[in-house]
Amino acid sequence: MIEVEVKAKISHPYEIIKRLNTQATFLKEIYQEDIYFNAPDRDFKITDEALRIRISSEGPELTYKGPKIGNLIDKTREEISININDLKKTRIILEKLGFREVDKVSKKRILFQFNDLSISVDFVEDLGEFIEIEGLVNTQNEIEIKRKEIFDCLNGLDIPFEDCERRSYLELLINKKGSINNTSEIENI
Amino acid sequence: MIEVEVKAKISHPYEIIKRLNTQATFLKEIYQEDIYFNAPDRDFKITDEALRIRISSEGPELTYKGPKIGNLIDKTREEISININDLKKTRIILEKLGFREVDKVSKKRILFQFNDLSISVDFVEDLGEFIEIEGLVNTQNEIEIKRKEIFDCLNGLDIPFEDCERRSYLELLINKKGSINNTSEIENI
Repeated sequence: MIEVEVKAKISHPYEIIKRLNTQATFLKEIYQEDIYFNAPDRDFKITDEALRIRISSEGPELTYKGPKIGNLIDKTREEISININDLKKTRIILEKLGFREVDKVSKKRILFQFNDLSISVDFVEDLGEFIEIEGLVNTQNEIEIKRKEIFDCLNGLDIPFEDCERRSYLELLINKKGSINNTSEIENI
Repeated sequence: MIEVEVKAKISHPYEIIKRLNTQATFLKEIYQEDIYFNAPDRDFKITDEALRIRISSEGPELTYKGPKIGNLIDKTREEISININDLKKTRIILEKLGFREVDKVSKKRILFQFNDLSISVDFVEDLGEFIEIEGLVNTQNEIEIKRKEIFDCLNGLDIPFEDCERRSYLELLINKKGSINNTSEIENI
């Protein structure tokens, strides 16, 4: 399954939620904690892959994400998820196999459905508010049509393309922590 | 969880099943197919680890097994299993992470309970019949007592210690295929 996805930073989440409440179907409000791992044989930061355990009220799941497809502003990539019955044991198995925990991303997600698109307004701990619009396709040939549909939706919500963010929450969080560390190192000189 | 386990080759499975039917509690008869994988960063054959997906009527599970503990004739090792909801997707995730399928082991397993021990009579495709007696312990300190309990049970079934087999079904299968290939190579000279 290929996930065609666009993410954008937003400054007015409640206004967007209000608009979505009239134009889309509200699905649920959910709290998600994502634990990201790096591989023993390669650096996922370089290969642009991701492996994560997601914990939410819907039960834990394990997800692999492939490298982003294309060089546009969207975040289209292959995504494969399975449900697992035991978070702690899955974590131990991954660690035994040499995977190392990198960081955690915690967020509250307000989820809507608009036609066959999923729209979520995310309140991400330490990062702020974002909107994610995504659709699933089976083959690379279908990406373009889905991409257009997503950008039309983004446009309909008056979110400018220049606010799109291609980096994952994990990358943004690591970058932020990196710059905080650098600042404190400078302050310590 | 540490699995303390003894396995032995048997030539008279139905006689043993008859004895177990009177002395132990019959639990179930189950067909299991195990798909084994090797790691991208090390050779599990050398590190004595295992990663497998088990398919059975009880639903698929993913299991990691650590190296065997000690140099005795039993197969004591750490074992961690989780239930997964999708065999095909789990396989794709493992392959995307660089794990490669090594081989499959298929068997019919007749399972009994004797005190806190699990006893199974296995009819393994291409390998023949075996008995496995196993118990679970939480710490290394408990291994010795459990080991004694298992060997007493083996003794009670009149199975000689020299019939014990420390190699896994996977190792036995690979060895067998290796020797068949070698024989046919010799025959082709």
